[in-house]
Amino acid sequence: MIIELKPSVSRDKANELGKQVKGIVVQDKDISCLVTSSKVKEIPSAIAEFVARTHVMDTDIQLASRSYRSATRTVELGNGKTIGGNTGNTVMIAGPCSVEDVEQIAQTATLLNSLNIGVMRGGCYKPRTSPYSFQGLGIQGLKMLADTRTAHGFSIITEVRDATHVADVIEYTDIIQIGAKAMYDHGILRACGATRKPVMIKRGFGTTLQEFVQAAEFVLSGGNADVILCERGIRTFETKTRFTLDLCGVAFLKQYTNLPVILDPSHAMGYRYGIADLTRACTAMGVDGLIIEVHPVPEVAKSDAAQQLNHSEFRELYASLEAVANSVGRKII
Amino acid sequence: MIIELKPSVSRDKANELGKQVKGIVVQDKDISCLVTSSKVKEIPSAIAEFVARTHVMDTDIQLASRSYRSATRTVELGNGKTIGGNTGNTVMIAGPCSVEDVEQIAQTATLLNSLNIGVMRGGCYKPRTSPYSFQGLGIQGLKMLADTRTAHGFSIITEVRDATHVADVIEYTDIIQIGAKAMYDHGILRACGATRKPVMIKRGFGTTLQEFVQAAEFVLSGGNADVILCERGIRTFETKTRFTLDLCGVAFLKQYTNLPVILDPSHAMGYRYGIADLTRACTAMGVDGLIIEVHPVPEVAKSDAAQQLNHSEFRELYASLEAVANSVGRKII
Amino acid sequence: MIIELKPSVSRDKANELGKQVKGIVVQDKDISCLVTSSKVKEIPSAIAEFVARTHVMDTDIQLASRSYRSATRTVELGNGKTIGGNTGNTVMIAGPCSVEDVEQIAQTATLLNSLNIGVMRGGCYKPRTSPYSFQGLGIQGLKMLADTRTAHGFSIITEVRDATHVADVIEYTDIIQIGAKAMYDHGILRACGATRKPVMIKRGFGTTLQEFVQAAEFVLSGGNADVILCERGIRTFETKTRFTLDLCGVAFLKQYTNLPVILDPSHAMGYRYGIADLTRACTAMGVDGLIIEVHPVPEVAKSDAAQQLNHSEFRELYASLEAVANSVGRKII
Amino acid sequence: MIIELKPSVSRDKANELGKQVKGIVVQDKDISCLVTSSKVKEIPSAIAEFVARTHVMDTDIQLASRSYRSATRTVELGNGKTIGGNTGNTVMIAGPCSVEDVEQIAQTATLLNSLNIGVMRGGCYKPRTSPYSFQGLGIQGLKMLADTRTAHGFSIITEVRDATHVADVIEYTDIIQIGAKAMYDHGILRACGATRKPVMIKRGFGTTLQEFVQAAEFVLSGGNADVILCERGIRTFETKTRFTLDLCGVAFLKQYTNLPVILDPSHAMGYRYGIADLTRACTAMGVDGLIIEVHPVPEVAKSDAAQQLNHSEFRELYASLEAVANSVGRKII
Repeated sequence: MIIELKPSVSRDKANELGKQVKGIVVQDKDISCLVTSSKVKEIPSAIAEFVARTHVMDTDIQLASRSYRSATRTVELGNGKTIGGNTGNTVMIAGPCSVEDVEQIAQTATLLNSLNIGVMRGGCYKPRTSPYSFQGLGIQGLKMLADTRTAHGFSIITEVRDATHVADVIEYTDIIQIGAKAMYDHGILRACGATRKPVMIKRGFGTTLQEFVQAAEFVLSGGNADVILCERGIRTFETKTRFTLDLCGVAFLKQYTNLPVILDPSHAMGYRYGIADLTRACTAMGVDGLIIEVHPVPEVAKSDAAQQLNHSEFRELYASLEAVANSVGRKII
Repeated sequence: MIIELKPSVSRDKANELGKQVKGIVVQDKDISCLVTSSKVKEIPSAIAEFVARTHVMDTDIQLASRSYRSATRTVELGNGKTIGGNTGNTVMIAGPCSVEDVEQIAQTATLLNSLNIGVMRGGCYKPRTSPYSFQGLGIQGLKMLADTRTAHGFSIITEVRDATHVADVIEYTDIIQIGAKAMYDHGILRACGATRKPVMIKRGFGTTLQEFVQAAEFVLSGGNADVILCERGIRTFETKTRFTLDLCGVAFLKQYTNLPVILDPSHAMGYRYGIADLTRACTAMGVDGLIIEVHPVPEVAKSDAAQQLNHSEFRELYASLEAVANSVGRKII
Repeated sequence: MIIELKPSVSRDKANELGKQVKGIVVQDKDISCLVTSSKVKEIPSAIAEFVARTHVMDTDIQLASRSYRSATRTVELGNGKTIGGNTGNTVMIAGPCSVEDVEQIAQTATLLNSLNIGVMRGGCYKPRTSPYSFQGLGIQGLKMLADTRTAHGFSIITEVRDATHVADVIEYTDIIQIGAKAMYDHGILRACGATRKPVMIKRGFGTTLQEFVQAAEFVLSGGNADVILCERGIRTFETKTRFTLDLCGVAFLKQYTNLPVILDPSHAMGYRYGIADLTRACTAMGVDGLIIEVHPVPEVAKSDAAQQLNHSEFRELYASLEAVANSVGRKII
Repeated sequence: MIIELKPSVSRDKANELGKQVKGIVVQDKDISCLVTSSKVKEIPSAIAEFVARTHVMDTDIQLASRSYRSATRTVELGNGKTIGGNTGNTVMIAGPCSVEDVEQIAQTATLLNSLNIGVMRGGCYKPRTSPYSFQGLGIQGLKMLADTRTAHGFSIITEVRDATHVADVIEYTDIIQIGAKAMYDHGILRACGATRKPVMIKRGFGTTLQEFVQAAEFVLSGGNADVILCERGIRTFETKTRFTLDLCGVAFLKQYTNLPVILDPSHAMGYRYGIADLTRACTAMGVDGLIIEVHPVPEVAKSDAAQQLNHSEFRELYASLEAVANSVGRKII
């Protein structure tokens, strides 16, 4: 249950009432809200005088729910770009799977600049499933990304793998990516709730939509209103492709949540050949953003070699997207 | 292995050679082919003199494979319409889940006529999972569909549920639909191999892509070259939506098979609210066709009430598709 | 809803009442029942005078439900053996995947005789997913099985693949097996409802427990009370093993249905190495039966070569089962 | 590839050679090993003189593989109990889902004492999927568990949820449990590799067997040889039960890895009713341990209320296990 308190209620009083109803106190702009379990359906009469409005909820998708806020949230991505809201923007995010070296990032920057793309991705803490694979450059990679931002004005999105380096990622990045394998991590979710930087949460490949949005609830109830969801494919019995992109699930997210949605066809497909078609499909779904892996020479990439587009393939794909976006009343930025 | 015989080889001789290599004899237009298990990698020297060309295959996706035939097959749907090939057509198929009565079919006909849609769907043998639900009108429904065809010139597609009525369905319909629950049914697959009418096979919700295309191999190797594949959602752990539409799988089918592909977002989603977005996504994938459930009054439908669009919703959706199709160089017919 | 009619109600009257409530008339021994959709929660007052008792049901698991009949059904398997009820029997069924030739069946008979096993399995209509694989001996195989029964007094269980040969299978076999790929087939389910021979239904690998038990409802509501369920593994994201044996699902079936349950670890595992351990686990679950694939020389088997035990492996496994069964108060027969 | 160095090679030299082959240096008792990616199939000739033996591996399941070490590892659990090896022990671990208060833990201790069970479970950092649910007592709970150990001599197993408190868990517990949602967490895995306390890794519900065992490789290659695997159910399309216990997967783990395996039927089933049957099945599989949730009054439990047995149910189950264990040549400790 979301309990909006009257504007006259002080923060101290809000905290006191929060304890009384076993709820989390959330500042939603100027309004203090108490958020309890959705099992709570009524407020105690003792607190009624402080309450402006209540939202009884069916499930613990509460702050993220369209029944609480009917409009999609607008999230600032830095350098003047926004995602969500009613702008009709489909934000393109592109870059390599892993940050590998300065030259690779420079080439990526040149590509993005030439296409006027404003958000660069690149992983520094790779959540590899084998200890014997490349694990990422860590803080050295973060610094390369930060240097690129300084030089070119991109916004940077990079992944936090576990709570041991969440502070570093928050410091260096513009948008924090919580990866598919880390999205249940309370250490990360709570740190992201306490920051003011926008957070993109990727759906775990074994994660239900309910759990996915509830991960966003951790960040939102922690005080950070700027959460973006990213669908990147779920694990099913089908193994010809790496994962199964769940566009039915995206339809659910668009219908029932107030969060911007980004799609990641690269990880879903796992193979270069299908990514262009899938990206166009995602664009026509009318989603808020796309995140695509692109690498100067995918064949020698240190991770995800099979699924990264080369620059020429990416240019060709990118050139085809504007028409698709326009056909559904949107524009690629 | 696909063994193309020389044009000079008689059919009798082809049959004799087929037995020799334990292969199925398939007439592919004027050419006789022997198709053996893909485990066979060499032909016996004794038959070499009759062989024009061989195709060694990795898996039992053989006649359906792009490595055998690089171009997508063109399939005639009746009344001058075709699917597949290089026409750039995206064929719209629409109609109710179940044929319920004459009035319902008449209203559907009016809708399709007004939009110039040429293929009507409607089920007469419903593969319900409960014996206590509506099971379809059976042959009475087939006759209603046939009457509509006579009156309006539509092509009709309707589903065969099991082998007991496959002859009736083949007799009355223009395109035979093998449903998701029936696609392993050898009785149906063999009957469809022996007919000249086009066959649309729906992927079972627990069916791998490999098995799906191999179902087509039963029909193709039975002598019917006109097979269309239909992806309609697979069963995954996610239950907020009825099924999970597998567009990564569609990318695989487009890349590796020579069969036209149709998408069914209605069954995948299971709820009206997401179908328009999904249909636009499917269109932007560049597939060969779409099949959508539409009902005059979905609320009282005898099956699939939650997922059928009403006529007004369908018109609105349909009006939006042309632009999307054009944006990827295709047209809706 | 299950409506038990008073004993005084004639069959003709029962049929008339059945039409009135849109229910299926089922003779459960001497009692006529009307079974309607479970959505029906009340009987029309006009028929009240004919009604002895009603069972309001939550779902369309009705005749198969423990809330309708609390005791597990006892099913006669022929030659004096029964499965289910409260006998504490765990019935062993063994034999090859496919019937291949007379010699193979003779060797199997010798094995079963030596262990006093009374039910032999063997497939004649193989539901292969490729048209280029061995498809089974068909009626020739059925006759081999029937000859073995005559010679040795085994009961025979063999699979029906599709409705085109269901009459033949019913004629030759003692227990009809509806395979995992055929269990939605209304043609088969209705034919099995109309016979008096016991029917074992295998769960489809993409089939929910609800749908699985509802397949049994087709047979039960068709008038055949002798249905056995068989869990044989479901398809999941894990591919190191062929399928995933669902023992949690078995716990559900034991709790909520009144049907005997058989387990098939051979198909679930798909590899010889795990079958002994799994069979012991299944035995300790306290299920009513086990069905195991065994072949004189698995390496040359025409189907399922990797998962069939050889005779020596099977003897070793079988020797270990008595102790496990006894430890849970059961006996292997 | 696992490269065993000659005993004469110093640690410093081993570290130098490790860099040379881009491998991780692991002390396996007195022997230094270099472990590289399994893609490496040959050693550079320059290091040959230092190498005692090499193990070429198919996959990155290396230190955990039976082809490296054929015998199951023996892991000390404290207070004189061991798991694994060839003892034939099946270790029972029991206790509540969450540590809730001192009284609850005292009652659990009394239960375990009366049955001579030596390992108590209890969660202090609950990986809940909603921020509005009970999140565990944290360090206060750890201290309650530690007090119980001091008073009663139990070994304690408790879960680490994320890297922010891994040091605390390692300090207070005897056996570290890495939960299903945390098993990809490099921060946790690396901390566990650096400790000497035994580690039990639970399989993620969306995790393949390959990834599961590779999580163990992180700990093993970090220098901790004492890793136990725990199967607790995977997420499938079936939702009548909470998860699907994967005993086929357990057969794989027993066949291909050298790690002790524990089964958790409580989380797999999610409902009290099936747990006794499943636990007996798991016991008959011949696994090394069992972990069962038990609560003084499950109805008021702060988490997992539906699946915890009450003390009387647990006693009844426990009494039945000895016979099952004996029937497969094992004993419950």
